[in-house]
Amino acid sequence: MPKILHSLKSLKTFLKEKRPSGVCVVVSKKLYRKFKWAIKEIGAPKKNIVFLPDGEAAKEWKEIEKLIKNFIKLKLDRESIIIALGGGTVGDCVGFASAIYLRGVRFVQIPTTLLAQIHSAHGGKTGINFLNYKNQIGVIHLPTAVVIDSRFLKFLNREQIVDGLGEIIKAGLIKDLSILKLLEKETVESFSKSRQLKIIIRKAIKVKQYYLDKDLEDKNIRQILNFGHTLGHSIELKHKISHGRAVIIGMIQELKISEALGLTFPRIRQNLVALLKNLHIKINTDLEPDWNKLMRDKKIVGDNINLPIIKKEGSARLKKIKLKKLIR
Amino acid sequence: MPKILHSLKSLKTFLKEKRPSGVCVVVSKKLYRKFKWAIKEIGAPKKNIVFLPDGEAAKEWKEIEKLIKNFIKLKLDRESIIIALGGGTVGDCVGFASAIYLRGVRFVQIPTTLLAQIHSAHGGKTGINFLNYKNQIGVIHLPTAVVIDSRFLKFLNREQIVDGLGEIIKAGLIKDLSILKLLEKETVESFSKSRQLKIIIRKAIKVKQYYLDKDLEDKNIRQILNFGHTLGHSIELKHKISHGRAVIIGMIQELKISEALGLTFPRIRQNLVALLKNLHIKINTDLEPDWNKLMRDKKIVGDNINLPIIKKEGSARLKKIKLKKLIR
Repeated sequence: MPKILHSLKSLKTFLKEKRPSGVCVVVSKKLYRKFKWAIKEIGAPKKNIVFLPDGEAAKEWKEIEKLIKNFIKLKLDRESIIIALGGGTVGDCVGFASAIYLRGVRFVQIPTTLLAQIHSAHGGKTGINFLNYKNQIGVIHLPTAVVIDSRFLKFLNREQIVDGLGEIIKAGLIKDLSILKLLEKETVESFSKSRQLKIIIRKAIKVKQYYLDKDLEDKNIRQILNFGHTLGHSIELKHKISHGRAVIIGMIQELKISEALGLTFPRIRQNLVALLKNLHIKINTDLEPDWNKLMRDKKIVGDNINLPIIKKEGSARLKKIKLKKLIR
Repeated sequence: MPKILHSLKSLKTFLKEKRPSGVCVVVSKKLYRKFKWAIKEIGAPKKNIVFLPDGEAAKEWKEIEKLIKNFIKLKLDRESIIIALGGGTVGDCVGFASAIYLRGVRFVQIPTTLLAQIHSAHGGKTGINFLNYKNQIGVIHLPTAVVIDSRFLKFLNREQIVDGLGEIIKAGLIKDLSILKLLEKETVESFSKSRQLKIIIRKAIKVKQYYLDKDLEDKNIRQILNFGHTLGHSIELKHKISHGRAVIIGMIQELKISEALGLTFPRIRQNLVALLKNLHIKINTDLEPDWNKLMRDKKIVGDNINLPIIKKEGSARLKKIKLKKLIR
């Protein structure tokens, strides 16, 4: 499992211990301007900073090629450490590039969004898009360490908080009821300043690590972490909405499907809707997924898909469901 | 470890057992014409055959992209199996493509050259070239199975036998003296028809698997398998000679270096030269490596390189050597 470091300062100590032959920090230009103070704290020399485009534009092969050219220019070798500073997309790209460069070098994630801090930065799922299919190309390459520094979260806008809350709610629903209880006292507006912030983040990371530890290769129970994602991913792409928002809608729609199949009680969905209202998260749950895109989901095996089913809040299992049933 | 299957027939049984959701065979056009009988024996439908260019031209990103487009077209998913039929380059490309497609699907190697049968097909080292650097991009992705069928070897020319013998001699020198003893009765001309062929191949594979099993990630003792390769790779690229021939020259030059550093007795090199003569392998041992390219070797860590040292025939260890010393 990646080491969780709770400040940039502890990253500096960590790097001193590991004695990498070289270090490189990858960041988008926008975040570089915003987080110069953080890069200063890490202590990386300016020539070792490499830039990526903002957002999904980074998740293209040509950007990976540019990254690797920079790694070569900086003479990074197998004992070097590459640091990704940013949200999920930077982590995806840098993780993939460091996985395939010289058949794999170590990398460290410094997630700057709530979503990445509790979700994307941990699992080693790296990758880029291909022919309009999301994450079609990638590998699993665990980061050596993940730095969680809550100072970054003060810079997030409302939508970015919602983005992370989607995954936090998911963690609560599949594994840890106490997260849902803690969220009852929060709103989107209060969250980044909440006294409970650190404890909620730690609990959500713990849920994530529980599944990674049991099934890193994503062959079975790690797929429970996909709750809300099967429909969510497809909705995200079709309607160009944020990941967290799409996952929230995905969770509600997947719960509806489980209800229709007689596998879940409606009360779970009703409680979720009430929690969202309490958090001040307004969503349109009627957005349809793109069924064609959904057919290319990596989780599909033959005619079936493994769908996570919430038995009760805080407890989930996987159920193989016929695709035809799902679409109906 | 990959399962070793000793015929195409046993591959058919293997596939029946594994029940993949889809199968695809990747082969070069030249080999397709040559080995139609083999593809027939596997029983793959024609529409599931995908072509790659011959030789190093295949080891480019644009060819990996084409492969992946074909995987998508054939609707291959995570439960599919991709089969690579050919020599080392086909294995490198198909291994890499299947490692990064959907974050990894299973693949089977059917090596058709002696070199691939005893060496390249087993270790999961996959990759492509980048900016004229060999194997700069890749991952370690073990095949599910390797099919060893000696019928393929009858189609090899003299140079291709030498190519494999280089690695077989290496296996003998680093780990199994009995291989060298068996080779004493052979010549390049007799080898592919030799009654000892199968036993020598099995022994060489066993040496390879011994190191893979101990250090798949290539962090320490697997690097012993690189004996002759540090200088060899660089000589191969500079003088455009075959891999096996380059490894043979590399072994002799690396032995010379160890002698100069007082780490090896000259007798080992003299015996090797005598064995080569006996096998009818003529080589020019004075070819210089490309020192600049060598500086980009993946095995270099800081100012040092791990060089395998032959203590006595059949026994090797790794020694960290200053690059400056090596060049001198």
